[in-house]
Amino acid sequence: MFSGYPGGMVLYLHNQIIQGLCERKRAGLARAVTLVENGSEHARHILEEAYRLRGHSKVIGITGSPGVGKSTLVDSLIGAIRERGDSVGVIAVDPSSPFTGGAILGDRVRVRSRTTDNEVFFRSLASRGYLGGLSRHTGDIITLFDAFGFDYVLVETVGTGQSEVDIMRYAHSVLVVMAPGLGDDIQAIKAGILEIGDVFCVNKADHPDADRAVAVLEAMLGLNRQWQWKPPVVKTVASQGKGVVELLGKIDEHLEFLKQNGLLEERVSRSYIAALEDNIRRDTVDRILTEARLDGTLDLVLTQLSQGKTYPAAVAKQLIGKYLCAEESDNQ
Amino acid sequence: MFSGYPGGMVLYLHNQIIQGLCERKRAGLARAVTLVENGSEHARHILEEAYRLRGHSKVIGITGSPGVGKSTLVDSLIGAIRERGDSVGVIAVDPSSPFTGGAILGDRVRVRSRTTDNEVFFRSLASRGYLGGLSRHTGDIITLFDAFGFDYVLVETVGTGQSEVDIMRYAHSVLVVMAPGLGDDIQAIKAGILEIGDVFCVNKADHPDADRAVAVLEAMLGLNRQWQWKPPVVKTVASQGKGVVELLGKIDEHLEFLKQNGLLEERVSRSYIAALEDNIRRDTVDRILTEARLDGTLDLVLTQLSQGKTYPAAVAKQLIGKYLCAEESDNQ
Repeated sequence: MFSGYPGGMVLYLHNQIIQGLCERKRAGLARAVTLVENGSEHARHILEEAYRLRGHSKVIGITGSPGVGKSTLVDSLIGAIRERGDSVGVIAVDPSSPFTGGAILGDRVRVRSRTTDNEVFFRSLASRGYLGGLSRHTGDIITLFDAFGFDYVLVETVGTGQSEVDIMRYAHSVLVVMAPGLGDDIQAIKAGILEIGDVFCVNKADHPDADRAVAVLEAMLGLNRQWQWKPPVVKTVASQGKGVVELLGKIDEHLEFLKQNGLLEERVSRSYIAALEDNIRRDTVDRILTEARLDGTLDLVLTQLSQGKTYPAAVAKQLIGKYLCAEESDNQ
Repeated sequence: MFSGYPGGMVLYLHNQIIQGLCERKRAGLARAVTLVENGSEHARHILEEAYRLRGHSKVIGITGSPGVGKSTLVDSLIGAIRERGDSVGVIAVDPSSPFTGGAILGDRVRVRSRTTDNEVFFRSLASRGYLGGLSRHTGDIITLFDAFGFDYVLVETVGTGQSEVDIMRYAHSVLVVMAPGLGDDIQAIKAGILEIGDVFCVNKADHPDADRAVAVLEAMLGLNRQWQWKPPVVKTVASQGKGVVELLGKIDEHLEFLKQNGLLEERVSRSYIAALEDNIRRDTVDRILTEARLDGTLDLVLTQLSQGKTYPAAVAKQLIGKYLCAEESDNQ
């Protein structure tokens, strides 16, 4: 991004951005996020500083199947947080889609309605296709939001696959949103989201099946007796703002429980491990495949594989040796 | 698994398993899958052989949100394939759950009903938690099934996250299953599954909203004009076996289209790249984090991170240097 600038100018711009973060200027945060999202080498200095500044925000992960009304619920939560006078940053992790040009129009529109409020900041992160992965920069961007000093950072994901579960490792507290009549309750076991939730919400609770959904969910949560914290189930009708203040209260209760029991550290450690994993993956898997593609090695290897002359595990070892370790030892 | 055996014995067992694969003995396939799933070093010889034997199977990926009736549909597809006299192997990739002890009871039960048929083989792959990932061995296990010589290999995933999309890269043809009344149609864009489908199925087509769901889906698919192959939308009522033969016909049509247009090679290449990525990730990210955890380095680093003395990108570089490249150069 800054490639046209001489070194001193780059440093000046970095300092401007970091100062913007410290002085809580939205433009500074926006520029920092863009640099990090683009994977710019220049972002490292900003991240180094951001990791020093972090530590104030309560990071809340919000996940659930499409169709449960998650976007509306997040909007209501923003409202509840602002009514208390607290500030909030929202990060929505969306898979990009060629159909919509890389981000979901609905989310962007939704947020514009709040941009006049200076204590609310929204950013939608699109995935970058095959090698970009869904989440590789999410941890760093949460850190930027934290460094900016929001009271709450909400991280919202779409879907309930492994990727979404991975992103939830960055959160201090995880809210799982469900809805009655979606076949969501029992099927939720399959998606593995019962294990990751700290607080559960059955949204669209004016639906006739809502009480049954809550009962089934509570029964299933009751099966796990190892929990110190028994995840509460809250009913909401987000479109009418019903139950949202109580939901926010339960989230705060969970965060307080973590603090009182010395468990918040564990959550923070979990987020560091997630960040390490994402960074290592970027510097190994992503890098090897990108370089092998560029210099033609990948094509060569694919031909050999299709002829049955080799097999993936053997090729993997060769590529690691060629791209990763050769260069590393040159640098030393 | 074979650690108690002397070297010659191990080789003998390997040959037994490979012979079992070649002679289409189910026990041989089952043992090979277990070895590969457990990440045994001994599996490499078997995989090397399997990559030589592969190439006969039509690999069909099947995905869709929980609740659309995917399991019932897969059962019906198995029936339709068997009625033609073709053989079929099914791989179900499930997230493991502490609630259910690592695999979904329903799937296992479902399959037992077919185990008397020698030309149907079912295997459910559970994920192994944090470092095991959802899919790291899926490609190799598909190859084992292919080497066994099934006419069709069905790979079924639960959920519609990035992980499921990743697994679909192993398939020659991808079937996306939806259902009316789940909020599935429009929300599907968010999950990014419109792009990966070659054939779409609206199951539970006796639901009053079915025609509307098909219309919306077809309209959305029509937005993408770059396709050479316009994905068909088929209505099914899997529980009554309705539409299933037609669905299988559309899948075959797609495979035939790929072959006629020289595009099957691309799909096979895509599966090799997926296998390379999974293998590289196992040998880099998984290995680094496992070793750093075992020797205490991870704890040390987490402390430094929590004190703001370093940041994840810097630590990632250090860990790569320490665990990956040091040992690699020792080996050379």
